[in-house]
Amino acid sequence: MGGLFGVATRDNCIHDLFFGTDYHSHLGTKRGGLAVKSPKGLKKVIHNIESAQFKSKFEDDLPKLRGAMGIGVISDFDDQPLIIASHLGTYAIVTVGKINNLDELAGRASNKGVHFSEMSRGGVNPTELVATLINEESTFTAGLQNAQERVDGSCSVLLLTEEGLYAARDRLGRTPIVLGEKPGSHAAALETCAFPNLEYTPTKCLGPGEIVRLTEEVVEQKKPPEKRMQICAFLWVYYGYPATSYEGINVEAARNRCGAALARNDDVEIDLVAGIPDSGTGHAIGYANEAGIPYRRPFVKYTPTWSRSFMPQDQTMRDLIAKMKLIPVQELVEGKRLLFAEDSIVRGTQLKDTIQRLYDCGAREVHMRPACPPLVYSCKFLNFSQLRSELDLAARKAIHEIEGTGEKFLDEYANPDSEKYNTMVERIRNRLRLTSLKYQRMPDLVEAIGLPKDRLCTYCWDGVE
Amino acid sequence: MGGLFGVATRDNCIHDLFFGTDYHSHLGTKRGGLAVKSPKGLKKVIHNIESAQFKSKFEDDLPKLRGAMGIGVISDFDDQPLIIASHLGTYAIVTVGKINNLDELAGRASNKGVHFSEMSRGGVNPTELVATLINEESTFTAGLQNAQERVDGSCSVLLLTEEGLYAARDRLGRTPIVLGEKPGSHAAALETCAFPNLEYTPTKCLGPGEIVRLTEEVVEQKKPPEKRMQICAFLWVYYGYPATSYEGINVEAARNRCGAALARNDDVEIDLVAGIPDSGTGHAIGYANEAGIPYRRPFVKYTPTWSRSFMPQDQTMRDLIAKMKLIPVQELVEGKRLLFAEDSIVRGTQLKDTIQRLYDCGAREVHMRPACPPLVYSCKFLNFSQLRSELDLAARKAIHEIEGTGEKFLDEYANPDSEKYNTMVERIRNRLRLTSLKYQRMPDLVEAIGLPKDRLCTYCWDGVE
Amino acid sequence: MGGLFGVATRDNCIHDLFFGTDYHSHLGTKRGGLAVKSPKGLKKVIHNIESAQFKSKFEDDLPKLRGAMGIGVISDFDDQPLIIASHLGTYAIVTVGKINNLDELAGRASNKGVHFSEMSRGGVNPTELVATLINEESTFTAGLQNAQERVDGSCSVLLLTEEGLYAARDRLGRTPIVLGEKPGSHAAALETCAFPNLEYTPTKCLGPGEIVRLTEEVVEQKKPPEKRMQICAFLWVYYGYPATSYEGINVEAARNRCGAALARNDDVEIDLVAGIPDSGTGHAIGYANEAGIPYRRPFVKYTPTWSRSFMPQDQTMRDLIAKMKLIPVQELVEGKRLLFAEDSIVRGTQLKDTIQRLYDCGAREVHMRPACPPLVYSCKFLNFSQLRSELDLAARKAIHEIEGTGEKFLDEYANPDSEKYNTMVERIRNRLRLTSLKYQRMPDLVEAIGLPKDRLCTYCWDGVE
Amino acid sequence: MGGLFGVATRDNCIHDLFFGTDYHSHLGTKRGGLAVKSPKGLKKVIHNIESAQFKSKFEDDLPKLRGAMGIGVISDFDDQPLIIASHLGTYAIVTVGKINNLDELAGRASNKGVHFSEMSRGGVNPTELVATLINEESTFTAGLQNAQERVDGSCSVLLLTEEGLYAARDRLGRTPIVLGEKPGSHAAALETCAFPNLEYTPTKCLGPGEIVRLTEEVVEQKKPPEKRMQICAFLWVYYGYPATSYEGINVEAARNRCGAALARNDDVEIDLVAGIPDSGTGHAIGYANEAGIPYRRPFVKYTPTWSRSFMPQDQTMRDLIAKMKLIPVQELVEGKRLLFAEDSIVRGTQLKDTIQRLYDCGAREVHMRPACPPLVYSCKFLNFSQLRSELDLAARKAIHEIEGTGEKFLDEYANPDSEKYNTMVERIRNRLRLTSLKYQRMPDLVEAIGLPKDRLCTYCWDGVE
Repeated sequence: MGGLFGVATRDNCIHDLFFGTDYHSHLGTKRGGLAVKSPKGLKKVIHNIESAQFKSKFEDDLPKLRGAMGIGVISDFDDQPLIIASHLGTYAIVTVGKINNLDELAGRASNKGVHFSEMSRGGVNPTELVATLINEESTFTAGLQNAQERVDGSCSVLLLTEEGLYAARDRLGRTPIVLGEKPGSHAAALETCAFPNLEYTPTKCLGPGEIVRLTEEVVEQKKPPEKRMQICAFLWVYYGYPATSYEGINVEAARNRCGAALARNDDVEIDLVAGIPDSGTGHAIGYANEAGIPYRRPFVKYTPTWSRSFMPQDQTMRDLIAKMKLIPVQELVEGKRLLFAEDSIVRGTQLKDTIQRLYDCGAREVHMRPACPPLVYSCKFLNFSQLRSELDLAARKAIHEIEGTGEKFLDEYANPDSEKYNTMVERIRNRLRLTSLKYQRMPDLVEAIGLPKDRLCTYCWDGVE
Repeated sequence: MGGLFGVATRDNCIHDLFFGTDYHSHLGTKRGGLAVKSPKGLKKVIHNIESAQFKSKFEDDLPKLRGAMGIGVISDFDDQPLIIASHLGTYAIVTVGKINNLDELAGRASNKGVHFSEMSRGGVNPTELVATLINEESTFTAGLQNAQERVDGSCSVLLLTEEGLYAARDRLGRTPIVLGEKPGSHAAALETCAFPNLEYTPTKCLGPGEIVRLTEEVVEQKKPPEKRMQICAFLWVYYGYPATSYEGINVEAARNRCGAALARNDDVEIDLVAGIPDSGTGHAIGYANEAGIPYRRPFVKYTPTWSRSFMPQDQTMRDLIAKMKLIPVQELVEGKRLLFAEDSIVRGTQLKDTIQRLYDCGAREVHMRPACPPLVYSCKFLNFSQLRSELDLAARKAIHEIEGTGEKFLDEYANPDSEKYNTMVERIRNRLRLTSLKYQRMPDLVEAIGLPKDRLCTYCWDGVE
Repeated sequence: MGGLFGVATRDNCIHDLFFGTDYHSHLGTKRGGLAVKSPKGLKKVIHNIESAQFKSKFEDDLPKLRGAMGIGVISDFDDQPLIIASHLGTYAIVTVGKINNLDELAGRASNKGVHFSEMSRGGVNPTELVATLINEESTFTAGLQNAQERVDGSCSVLLLTEEGLYAARDRLGRTPIVLGEKPGSHAAALETCAFPNLEYTPTKCLGPGEIVRLTEEVVEQKKPPEKRMQICAFLWVYYGYPATSYEGINVEAARNRCGAALARNDDVEIDLVAGIPDSGTGHAIGYANEAGIPYRRPFVKYTPTWSRSFMPQDQTMRDLIAKMKLIPVQELVEGKRLLFAEDSIVRGTQLKDTIQRLYDCGAREVHMRPACPPLVYSCKFLNFSQLRSELDLAARKAIHEIEGTGEKFLDEYANPDSEKYNTMVERIRNRLRLTSLKYQRMPDLVEAIGLPKDRLCTYCWDGVE
Repeated sequence: MGGLFGVATRDNCIHDLFFGTDYHSHLGTKRGGLAVKSPKGLKKVIHNIESAQFKSKFEDDLPKLRGAMGIGVISDFDDQPLIIASHLGTYAIVTVGKINNLDELAGRASNKGVHFSEMSRGGVNPTELVATLINEESTFTAGLQNAQERVDGSCSVLLLTEEGLYAARDRLGRTPIVLGEKPGSHAAALETCAFPNLEYTPTKCLGPGEIVRLTEEVVEQKKPPEKRMQICAFLWVYYGYPATSYEGINVEAARNRCGAALARNDDVEIDLVAGIPDSGTGHAIGYANEAGIPYRRPFVKYTPTWSRSFMPQDQTMRDLIAKMKLIPVQELVEGKRLLFAEDSIVRGTQLKDTIQRLYDCGAREVHMRPACPPLVYSCKFLNFSQLRSELDLAARKAIHEIEGTGEKFLDEYANPDSEKYNTMVERIRNRLRLTSLKYQRMPDLVEAIGLPKDRLCTYCWDGVE
């Protein structure tokens, strides 16, 4: 889904900018970029990070970069940051989000004589489009508000301008932006795990649609937050790094509570609880501690070289990587009844292979407890790179098999008290060869996160917008 | 000054595009770029060619490029080609020229809400600016004409569009564009030396301001040529590759005629005639043949690794390179009276060192015969990378020393029949420690080129616009 | 300490060789290398892996490599594999170990007229030295035995020869070599975690000094194992990947038993048990499960870009990396009584900072339980990259402070029932600002591993050779 | 054939070493290498220079290299320099030459227990072999002499040792080594064109087999020259750079004399004299000046990117490059009677195409005058990369066509007064479609060079060893 980081400091921001952006590496695997503002002007560096980590790609650039303010990005697909010259001056921009009406907005701009020169996957670069929306107004604040209003989907933005660093959170707060502070510096991050090691104290979560301007000295609110919030609940379940907090709620702790909730609703007889690294680990620990059953590691991830979570689009390669990065520990599997707490089941294809490997190692039983309800709707608000079609979702596939179409009775299938729900879950269980499968219920998930349901986006589970 | 090459063919243009662009490498040392149009869309590659040749930089890209039409560029400073999405569709663009009113035109565009995202040396990329001028109109032809009219300076353009390849020569024809043809292909080049080895026959020199559209099959005139022409005379004297012809006049042959004219006006007693490689060679051969005095090579250029003509802006590095690439041949210098036919004397700084090295090797006399008059005005129409200030010109410096200012009596100093001219030349001769120094006269230069004087731009010598 | 992997198969070994070697990446951070034998001869590739992972460095080479047999290495310092032409034919060689008498053996060879051309850190490359010892005999088997006997330290070797792949385990079995098999292929690995995902079944742990020859079809014993074994116990405590087994004993399971033993001897009141990732995790899980106290993750490692365990020699950089790769989770630390099960305390310098950060996050108490006794002697048998001098060891430093020298009463300090031991531990506890510190006892460690004590090398703890 | 350069100076030799070696780039296209000796030890860098020039490949290494003494090499095929540790100490070595008894010498060394680790094209690296011959003795001087005596072929060597820089010329002086001097520095080069721009004055041509030791302060003769000399005459005809002198005789001047000799024996009616760049230029200028016929450039080489003389082994690629690097100037060819003075005709294949292109451009007549006699024997003493088999020689091919074998009557065919010679030349002329073809005679060539015939190796022309 991408990540962003910005910093305004007294002297040289490069150390903080480099590590602060690097700490968003788990959110994307395609492009990374930095822009720095020095008295000599704006400078940017962009690298392809598909085959090597952000750090190894940018290390050589560091000595050549210097400046008091900077912004960085881990990007889903597109080259970022962009440097834009316009009537507002020359500025750098990074964005996180998803623009569903990209073509319409681009056409509208072209008809006004605006051109696009940053092509991306054969089309207009979404970040350049956001810049054209900003340029339609006479101030950065009005421009950012224009972008928030016109984009269908979501869009959080950082700008590096002559006046300072602008941070604008998405209109409905679907993606977070958190401010941090240390003497002489202000920073803005999507993931607060970027803060402690750089010695920033988190000071404020921007509200939905809120816009601020940061300099080394001040944080100026340019636009107050909107009332309505729809922050993505999946951030706690899957995307976020364990050390991060959104809206003041820590990811690891929320995952522990998710696991505990699963355990409280469970009475299966098992020998050990485990997670599939990395995203299942927090949930599994929570389950094990609540249930008083040993937590163990029958799968270890080979982190020295398979470090990142997301994968290339090529399916064969994804499957190979999925296999190679997990190593089974025969001694902890053979003859055992294993329960896996997983963050979620998306497509279930790799999971099926993973479960099969446990049986190949002699597992007696394999139980699965996803930390969230079945994914029935594909996300319209953020780029979720694992999915090519809604029908790839394990739940939808099961519905399609049952109904002959994947488009019917979705409300009912999303209801855990319905017959249809049970049939769907049983079909998924069967396909994955699980001994038992029991999903988290929505109220338990909401309680584990700890925000009111109407402040969370739960669209992918219940279709509520 | 830069060069450009375009090709439209039936199947795959990459071989021709690569070599055709490579044959413009002598015209620039900063950036090279290619754009190709295939059914899948436009693709571009740009490399920094400051430390390695165009060929070694682009070789690895070739297997990844494929398409029936393409454009390539050797660029003075800026990243090119650009891919532009606009109401005219998505197209690629390369330009050669100099835009004196860049800031004014960029400001005008910004005020209309247009932005620029291709920064270049801290400012707007001239090629992106030309694109905004094109985008102001409703057809490519009208847009190109708009660009021709609004640009103060010069601007020749190639566009790669859905409709074919557009070639538009500068309004006054300051830089040439020549069309070539072979079965199933049409090409456009600045330097015709790109044609013979790719088996193109030159078919037409575009006239000033003329615009054509090329496909594999047709050459369609979109706008007829203007009457007035001001093609740069320095192309024959210095810029062009010997195998190139502009307006049907070959460079090597013109240089031979320049040298012959120098010889006809000369009666100095010397042992041998030589050129400082590479640009003086053609002039020197012409002198030697006319005078019946042996042509020899007391300096050889170390081409295996010092291959290109133009140099980095850093002066120390330029001086080092200037020294290292020329190797004196002691045996051909010692005790000899040498005459050098040079293309021109620009700043004279390196020349001074070069001449000193001849005396260090035991030269008895060193005479110099530049193939053109003294450079009194710096070029306003093309990027001439060797110069930082007009006062760096050897002639201007001499005037400044004589008059206490470099801005007075320029007309008179440009007149070879004036006293002031003689004083200036004597001062230059003296500074360079030359035994004798005699410049070409304008009528002889014009005759050696072979076009009417009013079709040539001779601004740098006589200030005539 | 380094790792090695070899494979002999029917057709093309590259896939297995690449991943099999990659699975040893946790054992070294300097050099990686592959050698392949095809009908056209031997080919090798070596890369510096200090700034990027093995995988990203070698990916581009794969299409150019092809052959039925290959060997790979992760090397502590030196370029490997080497290709050696000698009277035995041309072969490739990789080694793992430490040669204490390198200079003596090199001098001896030089005096016989042998030269060395693979310089390493300014001296003779140890692997080239091993090759000269092999070349002293008339067969590979006799040569390998000669090397085993002459090397003071340790030395395990793989050779790629015309006759097949030779695997020779160190004379005392200090480092392991395990054979694996699948239809049509035989493999040899130091870490068995390389086997399951490549579908090899482990078939045999080579005994101390045992030599075998592998082809796709046969495993031929060329020299039977020696009786005496001194396998490094630290392999289970720290070096090994959790999914690996040595002598049939799994690392993760042994670590879980280590933790359980610590818990059985403990009665401290705490809120949660944790490990410092990655090496403390297995021990901590074992402790938590045995004690019935929640296991949690107050520190998470930022694996997306800080993936590997070992670090550069430069201390400032090591400290920065040590800090940056661990992110504290404030919510799990504040107001808590934490117990950390660590693999070991080597120097304790970074640990001190890490513990301080817990107090900075509001920890109430921090207890530590190393899974092994205090390290009193530095290893003579393997390269242990973290240490520059024996006196850097936390235990030795404490002894030095108490006694005014670090060289006295070592036996007594190594005895956990002595007064001196208690004084030393208390001093370490104090320096690290720990609430309590309690080391594993030797009998418990030996029992947790599960081999007789006299089969294990425990030199670093008790000085027994 | 390769080149070498060495320097011993007071402080830092890198500038001189880099440029000095670079000035040998015309002698090879595969590998370049530098070794430097600093107080910290020996350091080497080797790069593949097949796709980019020496300079661009080594530029990035310069800041990392520092030392008072260094050696550099342009190598035909093999990685050089090597750093060798032996009983003589650790030293670096570069060689130029050809070892016909490589396998025999390598076998002999292997049987003594010596190994080779620097594989080259699947076999032993010749430079490592020379090192083993040096190591057989107890001093560098005795070792170098041993190498001179045992090598069948030729071998010139530079060594970088603790005692200084050793330079050893081939036993029969087939390749030259010349010493140069400037205050505080001594240098050794194969090509003296490396000297003037680095401000070295040539002081001494080493005699055949002569060995010297250089330091910043002294030149010490370690072994006096042998009487007999067999320096390669082809150095003046083709290999050498025009600014170089061997045995005090300048290459460009010798080529001018070659051309003059051709003219004196000629009376053909022509319009202009030309050379095929670069190697024919010096000969052509000599011819034109002697004959009083205009020298012109109907072919220009595209030096900006096709800079080097030698070519890849792949024939299709060689032909493509041969075509692309030469651009015909139609204006100077059409309707003209052209005479080309070429250095030599080796295979004649590309020449045939080149001549055809002249006719395609409208040439009326094409005459050719090679500056040396027909090549009848392929060189046994130096690597001559253009040739794969002796029968590829244009002369041998003609003989084969006439006699049904290329191995008979060679003496007679080499005799310009024989009938057979005339038949052979006529056949070559016919194949190349030349209007006339007349080779230089041996006595004229010998006179143009200026050494007694028995001091020159003329084997390739007359088979005399």
